[in-house]
Amino acid sequence: MFTKIDHFKLHHKDEHHDSALDVAQGVEDAPTVSPYFRKVRKKELSVDDFVTGITGRDITILSQAITLIESQNPVHYGKAQEIIERCLPYAGKSVRIGITGVPGAGKSTFIEAVGGRVENMGHRLAVLAIDPSSQRSGGSILGDKTRMESISANPNIFIRPSPSAGSLGGVARKTRETIVLCEAAGFDVIFIETVGVGQSETAVHSMVDMFMMLQISGAGDELQGIKRGIMEMADLVVITKADGANKHKADLAKAQIRNALMLFPLPESGRRPNVVTCSSVEGTGLDEIWSDIEDYVAFTRSNGYFDRNRRRQNKYWMYETIDQALRENFFRNPAVESSLGIYEKEVDENKTSPFTAARELLENYFKGK
Amino acid sequence: MFTKIDHFKLHHKDEHHDSALDVAQGVEDAPTVSPYFRKVRKKELSVDDFVTGITGRDITILSQAITLIESQNPVHYGKAQEIIERCLPYAGKSVRIGITGVPGAGKSTFIEAVGGRVENMGHRLAVLAIDPSSQRSGGSILGDKTRMESISANPNIFIRPSPSAGSLGGVARKTRETIVLCEAAGFDVIFIETVGVGQSETAVHSMVDMFMMLQISGAGDELQGIKRGIMEMADLVVITKADGANKHKADLAKAQIRNALMLFPLPESGRRPNVVTCSSVEGTGLDEIWSDIEDYVAFTRSNGYFDRNRRRQNKYWMYETIDQALRENFFRNPAVESSLGIYEKEVDENKTSPFTAARELLENYFKGK
Repeated sequence: MFTKIDHFKLHHKDEHHDSALDVAQGVEDAPTVSPYFRKVRKKELSVDDFVTGITGRDITILSQAITLIESQNPVHYGKAQEIIERCLPYAGKSVRIGITGVPGAGKSTFIEAVGGRVENMGHRLAVLAIDPSSQRSGGSILGDKTRMESISANPNIFIRPSPSAGSLGGVARKTRETIVLCEAAGFDVIFIETVGVGQSETAVHSMVDMFMMLQISGAGDELQGIKRGIMEMADLVVITKADGANKHKADLAKAQIRNALMLFPLPESGRRPNVVTCSSVEGTGLDEIWSDIEDYVAFTRSNGYFDRNRRRQNKYWMYETIDQALRENFFRNPAVESSLGIYEKEVDENKTSPFTAARELLENYFKGK
Repeated sequence: MFTKIDHFKLHHKDEHHDSALDVAQGVEDAPTVSPYFRKVRKKELSVDDFVTGITGRDITILSQAITLIESQNPVHYGKAQEIIERCLPYAGKSVRIGITGVPGAGKSTFIEAVGGRVENMGHRLAVLAIDPSSQRSGGSILGDKTRMESISANPNIFIRPSPSAGSLGGVARKTRETIVLCEAAGFDVIFIETVGVGQSETAVHSMVDMFMMLQISGAGDELQGIKRGIMEMADLVVITKADGANKHKADLAKAQIRNALMLFPLPESGRRPNVVTCSSVEGTGLDEIWSDIEDYVAFTRSNGYFDRNRRRQNKYWMYETIDQALRENFFRNPAVESSLGIYEKEVDENKTSPFTAARELLENYFKGK
């Protein structure tokens, strides 16, 4: 509801004046960067170096380029934009899959289990994340990569934590741009994970071809996804932890959710979402999930929805990028920066109206242009 | 999801170059304006005239000021801003109540029945609306005022249809500004009605003290509000049409919704929403609804939530107003206007990336500044 108040954070944010090769604060290195390797590569890479490295599938260089995307320093960001544009002809060929689920739904274990299988089939997998809460919680959902031990050392699997700073809009855009680089680096399956809170699911939904909702059974919240308006976005519902004593409850939840989904109109994709159970521990149901993903992609490719959805998402991202750039330009304007706090306080204390405060701030901004 | 694509409409919108006294296209006159009265008042009113008229409770002048707010002409809009600022010291003293419900829930009849009662108690009631779909459907939900016959001629009740042009954000801001003028004109109860589709409910929720959801029973959609994520916002759920053969079904729905609401955490207001049944035709339950509103206001005033919520809404509207002004300035820029359609087409046809299109549009925009 009040996401707009996040802009204020933007204005307060520290700028990182690290060099292009530094890893941005709070963002971990990619798994394949050895400390030795980083030490010798001291000269700043050119845009050409980056593009050659990324398309040549150099994971270290890919990681560094993503760090530029995430940097708060406008110079870095400008360079990142050049790299993205140069990578675009090589991008777009992956299947982008969004994965959501409340904390406790077993996302990491699931991704680890499915990810290993996907790689075994000869795919190259990138796992990205959107978690605007990571700043507050002091680390992203994927920050603790030890949770994905079995796949994090695999050279065909690239795991990148959520950008740790910024508003949801900013974090989402950076992830959307990171997809381009990962695709140019030859990753043909992209998982975009989000924690099941707030509007981050909508952000993920706006950049994926298929949206998957993980759900646990037996916690009394089988219809939680419905209540939060998330289940309507799901192209596949997965009930996790369907093992041992839980198996029966998982089957009940499956029937319950399937019934609930029948209440919704047929999605625009033309395909009613399946509900499946799986166990990441026992390894059951995982192959079926990957088959369902392949079915979905084949179905939506053949009826034109896949392409139509991507085109619509592209337009959305054009407008979203413009919006954000306009806001950043505004909130970084010196006249605005120096007075925003005062205006906000006056509005908070009812001394000025929101409209007057906005008008005066805007006048100062446009006067300085 | 793709509301940002609405910006494009903004750019296409016709500008109305009517004089300050003309009634904007698609917006009806206030009920008390007699044609004779309008004919003699030919000179353009000054800001002083407007403020004096509004605070003097002149409904004709109030209507004309709202028309200025709704005008697409920047000169009118600038004048409207002055009027709003001058009216602010007289505003803020009403109770603002949002009313939502899917088409068929009986909103008009409900508002008519409750509105009459509220006026009988000595209150002055303004009924506003947010319906961004009104442009498409060729008329606002309140446009057909004959539906509220019994109250539309009452001088203590002011009914204003939804602004008929613009994106949801624009429509919402205009309604938010209209609240100020209505309050300055002595209306101490404001109803803001919205049709139960899309994000207009979130917009209404961001400007009211209390949010009420109307619900019908027996249509099999008792939990519709939950599915759409609306029920979480409700401070009161009203089951309408609880009369005749429907009464039993309404009582069942009441129990069902009450149980569903227990699953949600206690709202920030500190008060769990009540579920009540009523019949606008038989007149039952209506007094209880007004008591519940009074209870809610008293409760949230005493625990500080009422004031805290308004302060937060004010900050939200400051940022929202800034956002919109930045976007309008951008999309009305001649360089942007002349090329936006081309860029959108190229992005749609995959010839340009959304990021490149955004960057080039932004460059052209900022170059011209």
